[in-house]
Amino acid sequence: MRVGLRPGSSSAADARAHGFTEADGTLGDWLEIVAASDLVLLLIADAALAAHHEEVFAALQPGATIGLSHGFLLGHLREIGSDFPPGHPVIAVCPKGMGDSVRRLYEQGRQINGAGINASIAVHADPDGTATDQALAWSVALGSPYTFATTLQSEYLSDVVGERAVLLGAVHGMVEALWRHFRIAGDDPVSAYERSCENVTGPIARTISAAGLDGVRNALDDTGRAVFDRAYSAAYGPARELVAEIYDEVADGTELRSVILAEARLAQRPMSPIAGSPMWAVAPQVRERRGTREAAIDPLTAGVFVATMAAQVDEFRHRGHPWSEIVNETIIEAVDSLLPYMHARDVAYMVDNCSRTARLGARRWGPRFQAAYEQIALPRATDEPDVELVAAFTAHPVHAALATAAKLRPPVDIGVPA
Amino acid sequence: MRVGLRPGSSSAADARAHGFTEADGTLGDWLEIVAASDLVLLLIADAALAAHHEEVFAALQPGATIGLSHGFLLGHLREIGSDFPPGHPVIAVCPKGMGDSVRRLYEQGRQINGAGINASIAVHADPDGTATDQALAWSVALGSPYTFATTLQSEYLSDVVGERAVLLGAVHGMVEALWRHFRIAGDDPVSAYERSCENVTGPIARTISAAGLDGVRNALDDTGRAVFDRAYSAAYGPARELVAEIYDEVADGTELRSVILAEARLAQRPMSPIAGSPMWAVAPQVRERRGTREAAIDPLTAGVFVATMAAQVDEFRHRGHPWSEIVNETIIEAVDSLLPYMHARDVAYMVDNCSRTARLGARRWGPRFQAAYEQIALPRATDEPDVELVAAFTAHPVHAALATAAKLRPPVDIGVPA
Repeated sequence: MRVGLRPGSSSAADARAHGFTEADGTLGDWLEIVAASDLVLLLIADAALAAHHEEVFAALQPGATIGLSHGFLLGHLREIGSDFPPGHPVIAVCPKGMGDSVRRLYEQGRQINGAGINASIAVHADPDGTATDQALAWSVALGSPYTFATTLQSEYLSDVVGERAVLLGAVHGMVEALWRHFRIAGDDPVSAYERSCENVTGPIARTISAAGLDGVRNALDDTGRAVFDRAYSAAYGPARELVAEIYDEVADGTELRSVILAEARLAQRPMSPIAGSPMWAVAPQVRERRGTREAAIDPLTAGVFVATMAAQVDEFRHRGHPWSEIVNETIIEAVDSLLPYMHARDVAYMVDNCSRTARLGARRWGPRFQAAYEQIALPRATDEPDVELVAAFTAHPVHAALATAAKLRPPVDIGVPA
Repeated sequence: MRVGLRPGSSSAADARAHGFTEADGTLGDWLEIVAASDLVLLLIADAALAAHHEEVFAALQPGATIGLSHGFLLGHLREIGSDFPPGHPVIAVCPKGMGDSVRRLYEQGRQINGAGINASIAVHADPDGTATDQALAWSVALGSPYTFATTLQSEYLSDVVGERAVLLGAVHGMVEALWRHFRIAGDDPVSAYERSCENVTGPIARTISAAGLDGVRNALDDTGRAVFDRAYSAAYGPARELVAEIYDEVADGTELRSVILAEARLAQRPMSPIAGSPMWAVAPQVRERRGTREAAIDPLTAGVFVATMAAQVDEFRHRGHPWSEIVNETIIEAVDSLLPYMHARDVAYMVDNCSRTARLGARRWGPRFQAAYEQIALPRATDEPDVELVAAFTAHPVHAALATAAKLRPPVDIGVPA
């Protein structure tokens, strides 16, 4: 195992701290490492991959395997009318969580059998018949307790759509909309935060992780369930409309063109952070109170959040994704990786500090979700519930799919140290 | 003059009411009318033009002139890799206001010399040397008191960007952000509406129409001007960032691809209206109070609005648009056509009832402006002002350009009957 870095990379110190050195040949210039490897794992940032993939391809040994950690490069190559070079196996092993969770669960796996992060594998090109074995071996080496098969295209679509929708973009828009909603209804800033952001990243995420999507509704008393059903009925439609729009734009390549245009603008002028929004000012106060009080599930917030998850599940199903991918990219990655991280740091911090592609996507689509909740869903959240829609939710096949996947969940604490 | 309509068009009754009849040949099937005309004015909806332009082109007489009222079709043809048919003059006469204003000012022109709406003309193809004369004649016939030259591409860009930014999208996002801002700060719903939406569509628009962009700042006392300068300083940057992003997406064709994707989805499922947002519930109360009290300019709202206009002016200038186009597409069309209409009906009504391309654009970008004001501008609106930015505003060349254009303003009431 050798680490290749671009000249001047800020990760060099980190690599040395983990025992990789120029002296023994385990650390070096990226193109030299590429030229010396039979399996090349391309783990650099999307923008760097878009800018430099031709140099990388040119440096490959004949027949060396191209390994990816998600499908972005495929989307980019299609957009520019290019392709992977022929004669090379192309595989992907895609952990269903952020890098921080991948590493932490891997470390926990030293002590606890079964720890590690779920991953999907994709075999995109298999010229010598070894691609599937290589992908499985890499996934096992990563400590994945549960590996499922998909295609690079399907992975790309669900990954990029998911981070714009319920994994990040929709969460940001939702907590901004709900915080303002509760503030205008008379809550003080801290209570409004506890009923919106804290609720989603705390009790709602934990309940889904332990008891499934329907576990949230089941945890409520009759009064709470009535509020949940109304909120669910009001939010499902506008959320579904937006997930479908995002899906169309990602599948068409429009979203990627936007990212590339943004990269060009950002070379001139940095992105303004969004963490100045007034709700984040009270986050430290809320975190301080955590030890002394357990926030209960807010039924309005729960209805809006679960409806958005269900909308993404249904849209992914409608577009033909396999169940393993649907539950991992919509639910498990959210409640076991991203929401616990946001619980520790807050949502705005995550938006301002995630990958460029995800950050741009969350900023493009988060406000659309906010507006859809404020202008369409919340004004209808006191109307009678749509009984057919609620019945479709309680009888939804996703509950069985998630329960099956949950049996394979690592038996460790997924939480993030503060 | 003959009117051609698609079979079953709901406009047939309207055409008959204005004296066009099948009997005398002045009303008929659109493709038959096209085949019988030497100047064909294509005034159908953008989506219809995108779907049917090939049939229209095929029906044209040799050498007949193609007349457009804005540049959308050029953008669409470029996007699909097509072009106008050779051998035909292609001209555009583009009124700087919505259809309602075009008609009303034309009617007023019967009594009042100089009434009519400003228009730009563009000559895109001139195979026989008559195109400019035809465009000028059409503009005069429309009653345009002030006609300026541009190109179809420049018109298209400023038109489509403008409606997504300060003409409509930014106004919607801004009033949603400001209403919630004032509500959270303690205002009752009616006062919050008067300080946000009512302020923009009423006193701010009227002051700019009568006294220019700097007239708003000059109308404030010292305390008000200090608030204005801080708000202007906080809002200019994020607004400029967004106008640049919209411009990139429109120029690249990405925005048009989104519209086409949306049209396909909307064939399955109608767009949800956005007028349910709680602020619009108090609009009738505010309108009722209009006779009894004159709302003063709110300096915070004024600073945010004028900064957004200035950002669009600067971005258009940066991209090379002529001054006539900049002041018409950014300021005059807003304060003399669209904002008076929104004052009479309200902003959400306008978003839900404008052309499909504009409606989709306002829904895509309005929430982005809302988020930028809420998350970036308003949290900084109490910081010290950026004195250089404010000095650049007070000395801005746009004031002289607008004053020159204002001399040609029709001497009539631009207001909309309630």
